[in-house]
Amino acid sequence: MSRPSPLSGFPEWLPAQRIVEQRVLDSIRRTFELNGFASIETRAVEPLDQLLRKGEIDKEVYVLRRLHAAAEDADAGLGLHFDLTVPFARYVLENAGHLAFPLRRYQIQKVWRGERPQEGRYREFTQADVDVIDRDTLPFHYEIELPLVIGEALAALPIPPVRIQVNNRKLAEGFYRGVGAADPAAVLRAVDKLDKIGPDAVGRALVAEAGLSEAGAAACLELASISSSDGSFADRVKALGVSDPLLDEGLDELVRVVEGAASLRPGLVVADLRIARGLDYYTGTVYETLMSGHEDLGSISSGGRYDSLASDGRTTYPGVGISIGVSRILGRLLGRGALAASRSVPTCVLVAVADEDSRARAMATASALRARGIAAEVAPSAAKFGKQIRHADRRGIPFVWFSDEGGDSVKDIRSGEQVSASAQDWTPPEGDLWPVVTAEAPEDRS
Amino acid sequence: MSRPSPLSGFPEWLPAQRIVEQRVLDSIRRTFELNGFASIETRAVEPLDQLLRKGEIDKEVYVLRRLHAAAEDADAGLGLHFDLTVPFARYVLENAGHLAFPLRRYQIQKVWRGERPQEGRYREFTQADVDVIDRDTLPFHYEIELPLVIGEALAALPIPPVRIQVNNRKLAEGFYRGVGAADPAAVLRAVDKLDKIGPDAVGRALVAEAGLSEAGAAACLELASISSSDGSFADRVKALGVSDPLLDEGLDELVRVVEGAASLRPGLVVADLRIARGLDYYTGTVYETLMSGHEDLGSISSGGRYDSLASDGRTTYPGVGISIGVSRILGRLLGRGALAASRSVPTCVLVAVADEDSRARAMATASALRARGIAAEVAPSAAKFGKQIRHADRRGIPFVWFSDEGGDSVKDIRSGEQVSASAQDWTPPEGDLWPVVTAEAPEDRS
Repeated sequence: MSRPSPLSGFPEWLPAQRIVEQRVLDSIRRTFELNGFASIETRAVEPLDQLLRKGEIDKEVYVLRRLHAAAEDADAGLGLHFDLTVPFARYVLENAGHLAFPLRRYQIQKVWRGERPQEGRYREFTQADVDVIDRDTLPFHYEIELPLVIGEALAALPIPPVRIQVNNRKLAEGFYRGVGAADPAAVLRAVDKLDKIGPDAVGRALVAEAGLSEAGAAACLELASISSSDGSFADRVKALGVSDPLLDEGLDELVRVVEGAASLRPGLVVADLRIARGLDYYTGTVYETLMSGHEDLGSISSGGRYDSLASDGRTTYPGVGISIGVSRILGRLLGRGALAASRSVPTCVLVAVADEDSRARAMATASALRARGIAAEVAPSAAKFGKQIRHADRRGIPFVWFSDEGGDSVKDIRSGEQVSASAQDWTPPEGDLWPVVTAEAPEDRS
Repeated sequence: MSRPSPLSGFPEWLPAQRIVEQRVLDSIRRTFELNGFASIETRAVEPLDQLLRKGEIDKEVYVLRRLHAAAEDADAGLGLHFDLTVPFARYVLENAGHLAFPLRRYQIQKVWRGERPQEGRYREFTQADVDVIDRDTLPFHYEIELPLVIGEALAALPIPPVRIQVNNRKLAEGFYRGVGAADPAAVLRAVDKLDKIGPDAVGRALVAEAGLSEAGAAACLELASISSSDGSFADRVKALGVSDPLLDEGLDELVRVVEGAASLRPGLVVADLRIARGLDYYTGTVYETLMSGHEDLGSISSGGRYDSLASDGRTTYPGVGISIGVSRILGRLLGRGALAASRSVPTCVLVAVADEDSRARAMATASALRARGIAAEVAPSAAKFGKQIRHADRRGIPFVWFSDEGGDSVKDIRSGEQVSASAQDWTPPEGDLWPVVTAEAPEDRS
């Protein structure tokens, strides 16, 4: 077997980078749990008809078959999930009788999309989702709470500050109807391309494809240019002179989200009326998130309210949720060396071995340290102590433990200081116990 | 959409069960990290030629294709990994220049096998692996250390005690050669079926398929019947009168593993010479693990030494590793109600809402509790307090928080006791802070 090469779009981390990823995931999990969200995991596969039911991404699904499957194989028609919302909706329907509503759940898993890989866009990546889902009706206040939870989760990470941009599907759809759009979804799809193709091309598409008048297209572009960090955007929308009951409802909701969030976390949430979101299933507030200094990466956390994603025909389960694109954030920050772990292993103490006959004693020392919560491993061989110290140094392990007739001692290999110690009571400084993750200044690119 | 039904072989847990799973995974991770193993994760997919290279399970691989793949699709030839050893070997070859050897790594991920589902055997399941891999040569002592690490990890879980059964491929192969086997691997495959088809059928297969004499087959069955918790098995093997240099080497190694482990953890490891392991790549010690009272489940943790799984033609990376079958353990114990969480949500405090105008204040109270590490959420609606208390009760949330003109108070809804409190300094009992997982007596089946 020759040396294998990486698969494009399937990122893997080295051990020190993985420590950073674990800390990020642990921190997100802790914030979600502190906010009362329960974890679930769903299987990696869903029936294809579920996966293709919503949104415009059917071409991106990975389909499974067993290598030696018979024609009537029971797995036929299964694909890997491309997000965590569709599987969650299916899980809720399947287990509704065993769940308490409203259900606050978080879900941190890999998802797969067969897209063309590029920076921030992978074929396998990790998402961290929070959703609240209820039976029949979902109180509006969750549309204010969810971005606050996401803001709390992201603020706890060693990453640049973020801004959550919100819009409202009712506002957009009402406005589009108000300017005469026969197919508001077509308008939405065109507006969603603003960042990619610019306002001129979108304006032409609004006329040619969505069937708007020149004035209607201009009004839609005007709408998309409005943003504000308080409720003042509403006056600017009203000044456009478009009238529709759904527009009024959406405006009212968006004002409540922006002002409600500002009262608890000023500066986190802004109204931005160009935000569209590609997926069809959103019906109220929609969210995108930009990371300061990395706006070119696109949204690092997105979601929205959905009213009819989960329904078994008799009962409907409306929800609202936001997903953090963990791999997108880490791909950028690890790729630029902006996040680093203080060592590549969890080990705090390497127990040296004077000769192979004393290995059992060294293992007992390591075991005594572990029993007190100190990560310890024994040196691989009874090499010269200088080589054993280099073994620790290469991994960033801060302490090496020695035993001889005179008793035990422990050496801080950074300072060279060596002190007598007992595995029963020696304790490392708090900051050395486990690897520390720090945000570094990005590499100087001048 | 009608109500979906579960997919056989793809288990999913309800939120309270998932809390148990999280605790089990957290505990395993902590033991591995305390022992100085670094985490890695590999992508879910591997090239098919890698997956089909070793072992006898090619029929079980799930192959991927993109739904609208062109003929020249770059994903062609990818399959989901069926274990974590083959991907780890590939990862080591790919990243050898960036890794420090010997490399101690753990890996906790889902794997997929297209097998016929049955109890303890799933199509998607979670494994927790530890391996030590080195360059060119791997010190033998890791074959003693690894079962001790696994024993420590399993002893820390709320599960019945375990016994690790070990054998040695050199011992078996040398013995099979010593009784005249032309193809020792064929003998191994036949012996591996002892539990399934019994000694008589295995004896016939040893003659008919592996080409042994009647006496040779009898000796192999005799060998497989030997077990001991100390080094005494070696005398019983020698008494069979078979002679081979590889047999002697394997006997010596197995004695060292059993005695070395016994000196540090008496009773954990036993020599059992019927242990075979299906996979081709093991070359030294092999491990299986039985859980007390659940022997019928089969091995819950298996592995072995492999000398040539990872090689790029110039450099070889020998390793030894053991995998814990997390889903197999949990499927049995959760299925029988033998493990339970004290509540179905992480929430410790539900902050009640007197009216919707006071929701922002309730959210600030919850935020103050969270800042002090207490999981808190706000009631979904300003319903009657009795209904809000029932909301907490249904989820097992122990405390409900009230605010009125008279100040704040907190009620333990189990005892009914209500005391004045401030979100700045109230602290719940340690045992109520997070859900507690306990091992319950199995349901009475009489």
